[in-house]
Amino acid sequence: VAAAALTGPIEAAGAVSTLSEFALIERFFRRSSRSAVLGIGDDAALLAPTAGCEIAVSVDMLVAGRHFFPDVDPRALGHKALAVNLSDMAAMGAQPRWALLGAALPDVDSDWLAAFSAGLFALADEFGVELVGGDTTRGPLNVCVTIIGEAPSGRSLRRSGAVVGDRVWVSGPLGGAALALQALQGRIGLTAEQREACERCLLWPQPRVALGLRLRGIATSCIDISDGLVGDLGHILEASAVGAEIDLAAIPRLATLDRAAAADKPLVRDCILAGGDDYELCFTAPADSDGALAALAVELGLALAAIGTITASGRLVARVDGVPMPALPHGFDHFRG
Amino acid sequence: VAAAALTGPIEAAGAVSTLSEFALIERFFRRSSRSAVLGIGDDAALLAPTAGCEIAVSVDMLVAGRHFFPDVDPRALGHKALAVNLSDMAAMGAQPRWALLGAALPDVDSDWLAAFSAGLFALADEFGVELVGGDTTRGPLNVCVTIIGEAPSGRSLRRSGAVVGDRVWVSGPLGGAALALQALQGRIGLTAEQREACERCLLWPQPRVALGLRLRGIATSCIDISDGLVGDLGHILEASAVGAEIDLAAIPRLATLDRAAAADKPLVRDCILAGGDDYELCFTAPADSDGALAALAVELGLALAAIGTITASGRLVARVDGVPMPALPHGFDHFRG
Repeated sequence: VAAAALTGPIEAAGAVSTLSEFALIERFFRRSSRSAVLGIGDDAALLAPTAGCEIAVSVDMLVAGRHFFPDVDPRALGHKALAVNLSDMAAMGAQPRWALLGAALPDVDSDWLAAFSAGLFALADEFGVELVGGDTTRGPLNVCVTIIGEAPSGRSLRRSGAVVGDRVWVSGPLGGAALALQALQGRIGLTAEQREACERCLLWPQPRVALGLRLRGIATSCIDISDGLVGDLGHILEASAVGAEIDLAAIPRLATLDRAAAADKPLVRDCILAGGDDYELCFTAPADSDGALAALAVELGLALAAIGTITASGRLVARVDGVPMPALPHGFDHFRG
Repeated sequence: VAAAALTGPIEAAGAVSTLSEFALIERFFRRSSRSAVLGIGDDAALLAPTAGCEIAVSVDMLVAGRHFFPDVDPRALGHKALAVNLSDMAAMGAQPRWALLGAALPDVDSDWLAAFSAGLFALADEFGVELVGGDTTRGPLNVCVTIIGEAPSGRSLRRSGAVVGDRVWVSGPLGGAALALQALQGRIGLTAEQREACERCLLWPQPRVALGLRLRGIATSCIDISDGLVGDLGHILEASAVGAEIDLAAIPRLATLDRAAAADKPLVRDCILAGGDDYELCFTAPADSDGALAALAVELGLALAAIGTITASGRLVARVDGVPMPALPHGFDHFRG
């Protein structure tokens, strides 16, 4: 079972007791098991992997004040904690199946927990994912989700298969989440409409699981964009030992941002190129897949866009009106300072 | 990839940058993959489960100030963070295979990280476990390990199979970890020898993986003792819808504690019955397995001890010199308040 808590003086006053931890798990996180051999309630869950499949596993830890504002809508946090993991499954072309939740909570707030678990389970249900394990404890707010998915052996997407001449694609508008953060921090003025569109990207990212599954056999490499296009495409280039040229104008953006004031355009551009937290996919595919991908975009209702080409240069070049940008904003370092 | 960090004012000064996170993972946690199809370095690891096996998965979150002292030896913390998860695999009779690490760190301290990873990998190597995923971030110290193991389908140990007439067993001395904590908090005086023996239990628990594997086909139920014998045996009783009678004198304890001062004996007793964090196994087996278990104890060098019998009463009764104790200390609530 879960690790015992220290007791006595070093324990914060009013700590979650073992009993209330069990009660919490029962009340907010335990549901009858549908897909597991054995779900929550023993020392481990037991799962039966599908014959012929490999399992894909990933973990993400979200810390209050670093990955989300402490006063975030708990329903949105429950959604996002799982969404970022589902996005990793999407990037691998894996079918998400099961999740485990580690959570440190500063106090036991039933309303907060009810909303958090509602957000998490709504997304889990949408994607057929079952929560099969959990460990809740008292501590500074921290949510750590492990996701387990499956893909037929040898058919997963990786970062390492991009080939010179492949097109570079993204699965939808970039920069919205980063702009929402800039607005929340008072660094940019957005209209109510713009702000709402951007905050939807930041708080309610939609993992591109269906796309990832359909990209098996089409994409030569794939990654999800969580740290920004420049950084994450950079991972593909490094893993594949190639370069790329991309065209800024080809990168999809939220329609509402085309009306950004001129003064804000450099910031908008940097958010598109280097803003994190959008969770669209970036992938590469041979040019002869253009038709298949165009059809897939229509079928899935996604704004798939070819934004450039894989080159042999080993470097990433972004062009604006045909002219290479002299320097690229990288990851979220741009926003530090 | 991992979730993007918020940036700007709400981020703590000097936060771990994306780049340094990658560097950290490279330096301290990434090793060449031996057992995974694809290890650390993509959006997820890919693992090939053994045909005919179910996978067992569990997560444990350890929070500074709650599960360990913030100034704990980082090598011991690395050991324990994995040990508590290996113990869950032991309790399931599962062969541990892979682990994932989520870690929030208050700062980047190379010496601390080197020691933490050395402690974690020493234990991982001992048990043939590979670290296949990780997410490091800045935040209040928090370590969240997910473990994945395997067991032939249908052969795992559970909490729910205890039958009236079974013997109740524990795999070794209980109470040491709880007594170490009492000593560290100045509530009990221990000799240097006693203190060292108890601190070994608290800081360097030894997961009983080999025992768990051998208990397949022998034990009718199993759990690891992390919250204390009364509470954890209670989980077996509840899951199996039975009761038990145990004999306090039959419970193994550290030899050095037999010389505890008379005034300390009630505390020692409570630690044995309800102290957490020892990570011995509690299991049940038919009486006709006594010989097999005695032989197994010799083979594995463990102080396996039959401490009682499963009854139909639905209650747990502990006898001292044949007399039922009027009340049982429960979990670690005893130490509160």
